[in-house]
Amino acid sequence: MAASITALKRPAPTALAEAVSALAARFGNHLVTSQAVRDQHAHTTTWIAPQPPDAVVMAQSAADIQDAVRICAARQVPVIAFGTGSSLEGQVNAPFGGVCIDTREMNRIIAVNPDDLDCVIEPGVTRKALNEHLRDQGLFFPIDPGADASLGGMAATRASGTNAVRYGTMRDNVLALKVVRADGEIITTGTRARKSSAGYDLTHLFIGSEGTLGIISELSIKLRGIPQSIAAGSCSFASVRGACDATIMAIQTGIPLARIELLNVAQVRACNAYSKLTLPETPLLLLEFHGTESDVAEQSAMFAEIAKECGGGAFQSTTRPEDRTRLWQARHDAYWAAAALRTGSRPMSTDVCVPISRLADCVTETETDIERLGLIAPIVGHVGDGNFHCLMLCDVDDADEVGRAEEFLHRLVERAHAMGGTCTGEHGIGQGKQKYLKSELGPEALDAMRALKAALDPHGIFNPGKILPPA
Amino acid sequence: MAASITALKRPAPTALAEAVSALAARFGNHLVTSQAVRDQHAHTTTWIAPQPPDAVVMAQSAADIQDAVRICAARQVPVIAFGTGSSLEGQVNAPFGGVCIDTREMNRIIAVNPDDLDCVIEPGVTRKALNEHLRDQGLFFPIDPGADASLGGMAATRASGTNAVRYGTMRDNVLALKVVRADGEIITTGTRARKSSAGYDLTHLFIGSEGTLGIISELSIKLRGIPQSIAAGSCSFASVRGACDATIMAIQTGIPLARIELLNVAQVRACNAYSKLTLPETPLLLLEFHGTESDVAEQSAMFAEIAKECGGGAFQSTTRPEDRTRLWQARHDAYWAAAALRTGSRPMSTDVCVPISRLADCVTETETDIERLGLIAPIVGHVGDGNFHCLMLCDVDDADEVGRAEEFLHRLVERAHAMGGTCTGEHGIGQGKQKYLKSELGPEALDAMRALKAALDPHGIFNPGKILPPA
Repeated sequence: MAASITALKRPAPTALAEAVSALAARFGNHLVTSQAVRDQHAHTTTWIAPQPPDAVVMAQSAADIQDAVRICAARQVPVIAFGTGSSLEGQVNAPFGGVCIDTREMNRIIAVNPDDLDCVIEPGVTRKALNEHLRDQGLFFPIDPGADASLGGMAATRASGTNAVRYGTMRDNVLALKVVRADGEIITTGTRARKSSAGYDLTHLFIGSEGTLGIISELSIKLRGIPQSIAAGSCSFASVRGACDATIMAIQTGIPLARIELLNVAQVRACNAYSKLTLPETPLLLLEFHGTESDVAEQSAMFAEIAKECGGGAFQSTTRPEDRTRLWQARHDAYWAAAALRTGSRPMSTDVCVPISRLADCVTETETDIERLGLIAPIVGHVGDGNFHCLMLCDVDDADEVGRAEEFLHRLVERAHAMGGTCTGEHGIGQGKQKYLKSELGPEALDAMRALKAALDPHGIFNPGKILPPA
Repeated sequence: MAASITALKRPAPTALAEAVSALAARFGNHLVTSQAVRDQHAHTTTWIAPQPPDAVVMAQSAADIQDAVRICAARQVPVIAFGTGSSLEGQVNAPFGGVCIDTREMNRIIAVNPDDLDCVIEPGVTRKALNEHLRDQGLFFPIDPGADASLGGMAATRASGTNAVRYGTMRDNVLALKVVRADGEIITTGTRARKSSAGYDLTHLFIGSEGTLGIISELSIKLRGIPQSIAAGSCSFASVRGACDATIMAIQTGIPLARIELLNVAQVRACNAYSKLTLPETPLLLLEFHGTESDVAEQSAMFAEIAKECGGGAFQSTTRPEDRTRLWQARHDAYWAAAALRTGSRPMSTDVCVPISRLADCVTETETDIERLGLIAPIVGHVGDGNFHCLMLCDVDDADEVGRAEEFLHRLVERAHAMGGTCTGEHGIGQGKQKYLKSELGPEALDAMRALKAALDPHGIFNPGKILPPA
């Protein structure tokens, strides 16, 4: 199973200069080397230090990606794909320099097929732009990671978000991809058929590969009909365990929850302060139901019963858009509310995911750890998936606090692993979590991943230094 | 992208003899070399000629699979995994001889986790045995390919079936696998967490790989709560197009159809004759709804409206188990009813899958082709997925008819491709459909698949001669 990938290093200065010169000749002013633009393309959403690329190509078409890859591959210069830069684990950093291929101007919606509930798009289309385009046809794309990310980036990082409990993650919503491979040719991974058993599942291999196996140049994705009726409601619980029990019971009962989000006490307090709300300062569940009017009424009534059984407060739902918006305000503002707890600090969002039966334990032990270590880190959770986030607010100039934060992150992943979970439900591995792949899956899985990388990218030009830890 | 796999050939007789002798020493009477048992392990469900293995190991544990693989790998002897032998495209044949590893006695249910709606099982557990075991806990595993297949085999072939429209295929229902790799070590592909973005998606790479990349020794799979209420009904349509239009409209409206199956006129006639029914001899849809009592009543009423709009007959549903059974009789007997149309012929089931907007065209053109070529081939379809089957009844001793049948199969796949579909929705590639992978996805995808095969199975010991066509 030995797999050799060319050693991770910066390209030779002459090779890089040649590549940039060839790119300039091919791309004119769509090649940018200014420091400001390079800095914008380095990772900035966490405390991982930004590592800008040497140059940025503003790709306009698949042919642009192909040519840029060919020029770089010929000189073994790294190539880093870029969507909107909203990834959270250093996925777009350029630790070995190289050329960033920015796909944001590849934002054409190529075809919408309402009868098939699918569409074909370029990778730079963002989810908000797509949903804006689809609204008049009564359709929407359900995956919502929070940020207005590009669909190419969402596929590359296997993104999910608040309504994965109902609609799945990017893993479940991509029919097929076109991917530029290491020699510049394009791999087609599937058709628009809803299902296929024709050969190896290349689509899923590229989903979540974080640009390390190829660059996505086109996506065929599933769409849904906008539900007739949407109801939302919130429910306070005496404990995180009560909220988790209610969630488990609702799922077992078969209520097709569209969203079920947990805010812990620290997050509720932050939201009250930030959004001038008067929520009871206890764990809070926010819920959304999709369906016909009678569906959502029935689902809501069923959940109210369950909440009562699990020690929750009164539950009522509303279908009025303005009331729903107000209800979800706390969740939408969670990031900013947490950030406002400590101005000047850098919010750092991390996530783990465990089997739902262990979620209450995992959140409760994590809260204890936060307190013990003297950290500020409110928790929000996609509780239906067993997935939760800690938004850590850390003074990055305080070495002692950074040390405690690192200890916290390490213990959080170990806790998730001990409970049969994963080190990341939706943020990915990037640079931040490489050290946990082996402890999560074992050396054999890591061998297999290295072998796949070597098979598809033998010279290691695609996003080097991501996912796979140094051998 | 060049990938070298050891040439496909029978192992040297001395290597084979050595392997069989080492297996006999290790496995005692769990190694079987009788002709009868070898023949039982060759493919028998189609007209592809049976090709028995040289020996069969009745594995009792993952350690047995590991040792058998190690013994064979050391001598480059092929290894073919076997579940129940119900695959349809020659997946369990041994064209280059070698050792079959039969997993049917690895049938332990290791753990059921009701709160997490998942379970951990050995690969030889069959779907009926699993559902029998789960019933008392109010849980079930939804994938139903018809045959009482093993879960290991269903994962290996990416199986689906009648209720994929609601619950997805094996692709959507496996959380993690353990897979014995080519050196006998075990790869763990994931955790029991509902979602993960930790590294390459090894789980999906092995699902549908038909035993060519490794042998599944354990599965963690998703379960569902048995619905409170199940309603079923049937509806006749003047045309296949009307039935397809009703299906599309029902999906667009968001009715969570649990099953929606099409029988064409030829199949309805066969069922009437075989099961002594008096169904009108027009295209027929059979439907099933899952949910609460009010859910299924509402869904049923909504579908009745849609059927009327699309020129369908009256639609009523029933929740009484005996009435449901009677309604589904026609579908359950479809295979035997078709087979009875021509006693002595060999039923040969093939499938394609197209975007649902093209399904009516595809079925109608296929019916015309069947008539033109003078063949007998009733059609049943998982119409919600755009997937349908032709059950061809062919006199395999009539060379002219076999020629026409082959022409029909070829044109069927070409038609599906021309409509943006796939050469197989659920039967897989096996031996039968290798020649269509390249025309479906292009040479680049085939290159990638070959590279993956070489990366994970460099000596080509796993199920040689399957999926990938000769270079």
